Amino acid sequence: MTGEQLYSRFKTKMQKIADVRFASAVLQWDQETCMPPAGAQARGSQIATLSEISHSLFTEADTRNILQELSGRNDLTERQQRNIALTLTDLDREQKLPSEFVHRMAETINRCFHAWLQARKENQFSFFSKPLEELIQLKRQQADLIGFRDHPYDALMDEFDRGLTVKQVDSMFRGLTPRLQVIIDKIKEATSPDTSILHGHFEKQKQWDFGIGLLKEMHYDFNAGRQDVSEHPFTIHFGSRDVRVTTRIDEMDFGNMTWSCLHEGGHALYEQGLPEEEYGLPLGESCSLSIHESQSRLWENCIGRSKPYWQYHFEALKNIFPERLATSNAESFFRAINKVTPSLIRTEADEVTYHFHVLIRYELEKELISGTVSPADIPERWNELYKTHLGVTVPDDKQGCLQDVHWSHGSFGYFPTYSLGSLYAAQFFDVIKKQHTDLDALVAAGNTKPVWHWLQKNIFKHGRYFNSSDLCRQATGEDLNPKYFIEYITKKVSEVYGIDVPNN
Amino acid sequence: MTGEQLYSRFKTKMQKIADVRFASAVLQWDQETCMPPAGAQARGSQIATLSEISHSLFTEADTRNILQELSGRNDLTERQQRNIALTLTDLDREQKLPSEFVHRMAETINRCFHAWLQARKENQFSFFSKPLEELIQLKRQQADLIGFRDHPYDALMDEFDRGLTVKQVDSMFRGLTPRLQVIIDKIKEATSPDTSILHGHFEKQKQWDFGIGLLKEMHYDFNAGRQDVSEHPFTIHFGSRDVRVTTRIDEMDFGNMTWSCLHEGGHALYEQGLPEEEYGLPLGESCSLSIHESQSRLWENCIGRSKPYWQYHFEALKNIFPERLATSNAESFFRAINKVTPSLIRTEADEVTYHFHVLIRYELEKELISGTVSPADIPERWNELYKTHLGVTVPDDKQGCLQDVHWSHGSFGYFPTYSLGSLYAAQFFDVIKKQHTDLDALVAAGNTKPVWHWLQKNIFKHGRYFNSSDLCRQATGEDLNPKYFIEYITKKVSEVYGIDVPNN
Repeated sequence: MTGEQLYSRFKTKMQKIADVRFASAVLQWDQETCMPPAGAQARGSQIATLSEISHSLFTEADTRNILQELSGRNDLTERQQRNIALTLTDLDREQKLPSEFVHRMAETINRCFHAWLQARKENQFSFFSKPLEELIQLKRQQADLIGFRDHPYDALMDEFDRGLTVKQVDSMFRGLTPRLQVIIDKIKEATSPDTSILHGHFEKQKQWDFGIGLLKEMHYDFNAGRQDVSEHPFTIHFGSRDVRVTTRIDEMDFGNMTWSCLHEGGHALYEQGLPEEEYGLPLGESCSLSIHESQSRLWENCIGRSKPYWQYHFEALKNIFPERLATSNAESFFRAINKVTPSLIRTEADEVTYHFHVLIRYELEKELISGTVSPADIPERWNELYKTHLGVTVPDDKQGCLQDVHWSHGSFGYFPTYSLGSLYAAQFFDVIKKQHTDLDALVAAGNTKPVWHWLQKNIFKHGRYFNSSDLCRQATGEDLNPKYFIEYITKKVSEVYGIDVPNN
Repeated sequence: MTGEQLYSRFKTKMQKIADVRFASAVLQWDQETCMPPAGAQARGSQIATLSEISHSLFTEADTRNILQELSGRNDLTERQQRNIALTLTDLDREQKLPSEFVHRMAETINRCFHAWLQARKENQFSFFSKPLEELIQLKRQQADLIGFRDHPYDALMDEFDRGLTVKQVDSMFRGLTPRLQVIIDKIKEATSPDTSILHGHFEKQKQWDFGIGLLKEMHYDFNAGRQDVSEHPFTIHFGSRDVRVTTRIDEMDFGNMTWSCLHEGGHALYEQGLPEEEYGLPLGESCSLSIHESQSRLWENCIGRSKPYWQYHFEALKNIFPERLATSNAESFFRAINKVTPSLIRTEADEVTYHFHVLIRYELEKELISGTVSPADIPERWNELYKTHLGVTVPDDKQGCLQDVHWSHGSFGYFPTYSLGSLYAAQFFDVIKKQHTDLDALVAAGNTKPVWHWLQKNIFKHGRYFNSSDLCRQATGEDLNPKYFIEYITKKVSEVYGIDVPNN
C-alpha cells in the first residue's frame, strides 16, 4: 500500500469517528435549545452511547496499527505527518480511559446537567450536590487514569490546553492579579461612570435583531451557522460548515445579549475558519481552549468594548432604542460599558475583576480535585472565596456556585483558559494594531475586516498544527506575556476613569 | 445465566442500537428544520455513518447468538418472547443487507433529498433525475437482496407493512376505486359547495396558534414533543417521550396548516402512546405504517373533517379570523372543507380523489422497480397517469412528480399504506362510534377523549405485538374491509352534496 492509500484509510476512519462525535454534538445542541423536557432521560442514554462508540472506534487496535505504519513512512506531506503525530498523542491519552468509564462519564454528565438546571431553577444547591459528587469522583479517577507529574488537576487541564500545568497557571495569576488589584484600588478614589443608560427596558425582538446584525458584521457566516436562545450561551460545531451560536436575552439588561453575541461570534469565526478539508483530523480542529477563548475575548472586549467600535455602532443602537439612549453619546456609552466593579456573576463581570472570578473557580476546582474540599461544602467555600477576592457577599447559590454550566458538563480545568484567553487576545490584538496603525479609524468606520483577515492567516488556518505556546510565538514573535493585557487594560481604565494608573 | 439475565443483555443491546437510530433521527429532524445550508454535506456523512453503525451493531454475530439462546428458553414472559421473535424476524431481513450497502443507501438518500429540494426550488426535475436513478438502482438491488415471491415491490412494501403484497394492494384498489369513481361521477351532476371562505389571507401567527391549540386539545403532549415548520410536514420520534411534529403554513390557504396539524398529531399520539418501558424493543414500536396512517387519517378526516368537530371549533376560528369567516357558519364550513374535486396535489386532495393520487404513485413505483419505466421518464408517465385517473393536466413538475418527499427519502412501497390507513381508520372509527353512540355529541362539545382512550387501549399499547391484519381483527373483530370506508365516505358526500349516492 502506498503512503497515500494508507493515509486515506486513516482519514476515512477519523472522519467516521468525527461523524459520531459531531452527531453527539447535534444531540447536545438540541438538548439545550429545542428538546422537550420529557426527552431528557432517553437523550442522556443516546449521548452516552455515542460517546462510547466514538471512544471504542478510536481506541480499537486497528487505529494504532494504521498510525504506527504511517509514522514510519517518508512518502507523506508534512501536514499529513502532523495529523498522524497529533492523533497518536490523542490516542495515547484516550486509551487510558476504558470504554465503560467513558460511558459512565457521559451518563453522569447528562444527569448532572439536568440536576444543575433544576437546582438553578429552584435556587437550591442540594439538587445538584449528589450527582456532582459522583462526577467529581469520576474526574479524580480520570486524573489518575491519565496520569500527572505534580498535580491531578494538570491531567484535567491537559484536556483543554495540552501540557498546561498548575505551576504555569499559578505563575500566570501571580503575575496578573496583584496588578489588577492595584487598578481596583486606584478606581476606588475615582468617580464611577454613569451606567444608568444601560438599564431599563430593551425590547427582546429588537435586541435579537441588533445581535444578528453584529454577528453578520463581524463576518459570521449564517449560511454555515445559526443563532438560537439557550440558558447559557455557547458555541458548538458539527464540522466547520455548521457552527452554531446561542445567546440569552434579558429585557432589562441589554449588555447580556450584545456581548454574548460578540463573544460566541468570536468562537464561531474560529470554527468557521478552520480548514474544511481537514474534517475529522487534528488540523481541522482548534489549537486549544485558551486560544479559542482568545478569539471570543478579542471580539467581545478588545473590539466590542472599545471606543472606536461604539463610535460606529452607537448611532444605530440609538435609533433602535431612542427612548433609552437619546440623551447619551458614544463617549459616555463607552465609559458606561467599561465600569469596573466587583460583582457576583462571572459572565457579566468587567475585564478587570473577571480574572478574580476565574481565580476563585480555579482555586476551588484544585481543592475539589485534591479532595481538600468536599462537594457538599462548595457553597460555603464559594462564598468565602468571593468575600476574600472580590469583597462581595453572595446572597444565594443561583448568584453563587450554581451560576456556571461548566461543572455540570464535567468541564473541570476549563476556567483557567478564560484568563489565558484574555491574555492571548491582548497580545494578538497588540500585533494587529501594530500592523494596522489605522485600525482604530477603520473600526470607527465599521470595518473589522483587517482583524478577521489577520486571525484567518495567523490563527485559523493552522488548526492544531501548533500548541498554544508555539502558536503564540509564531503569531506574535514572542511567548505569552501578561504585560500586553496589563498595558491594554491599564490604558482603557485610565481613559474610562480619567485617572492615571501606574503601568508597572 | 437465568432467562432474566440473558434477556437483560438482549435489552441493553437493543437499547444501544435504538440510541444510535434515534440519534440519526435527531440529525434528520435538525436537517429539515434547523440546519444551515452549508452543513448539508457533512450531515449526509454523519447520518450515513450512524446508519452503518446501527446496522453493524444489529447484524453482528453476538445478536443472533443471544437471540437463539433466548428463543429456546421457557422462563420468559410472553411479551419477552414476542420481542425476541420479532427481533429475529428483523434480523433475518437486515442481515440480507451488507453494511456497505446500507452506508451507500444512506448516503444516496441524503444526496437525493438535497437534489429534490433543489429540483423543487428550481421547478426542474432534471436536478433530481440522476441521484434518483442511482437510488432506484439501489432499491431494486435491495429487493433482490431481501428476496420476494411474486414481485420485487413486495420486498419493499414489506419494510413498511410486514407481509404486504402487490396482490393484496391490487385487490384493495380494485375493491375501492370503482366505487370512488361512482361517487366522483355522481358529484358532477350536483352543485359544488362554496369554498370561497377558505381562501384569502389568514395571518401566519394566528394560524400557528390555532394549530397549537388543536394539538393540545387532541391530547398531544407538548412536554414530550414540539412543533416546528418544515418544507414537508412530518412526525419523528426519538423514543416515546420525544415525539416531534412539523407543519407548513400557507397564508393564503388556511387548510394546509390545520389538517397537517391534525394529521401529524394523529401520528404523534400513537408514538407518544407506545409503552415507554419497551424503548428500543419491538413492543415499543408501532405496528406498521398502514396502522400509523390510520391514526393520522382518523384524526385528520374522521374527526377533523366531521361536522361535529366544526360545530365545536368553528366559533373559535371565526373569532380568530372574523374578517374572513363572519358571514359563514359551521354547516357551510363543513361543506366547504369536504368539497370533492380532482386536483394536482396529493396532500391537499379530498378524501375521495386522494386514493387516485396514491394509486398513481403505486402504479408508477411498481413500474420503476420492475424497470419498465426509467427514472428519466417519470414526468411524462406521471402526467399521463394524472390525465388517465384524475383527468387533470399537470402544468409543471413542482405540481407534479416533484411534490412528494418520499422518493428522495428512499421510501418506495410507502404510498399504498396511505390508502390502507384510510380504510383501517374508517373501520376503527366505525367501532368507536358503535361503542360510543353519543360520540357526535361529545365531539360537538369539544370532547375527543373517548377516541383517544379507545386508541390507547386497542392500538397504542400493543406496540408491534400484532401485525396489521391481526391488530385489525383484535380491535374490530374482523378483517380489514373496505366497506367501512365506502360507507363512511358515501354518507359524508351525500350530506355535503345533498345527493343520494348508491352505497353498493
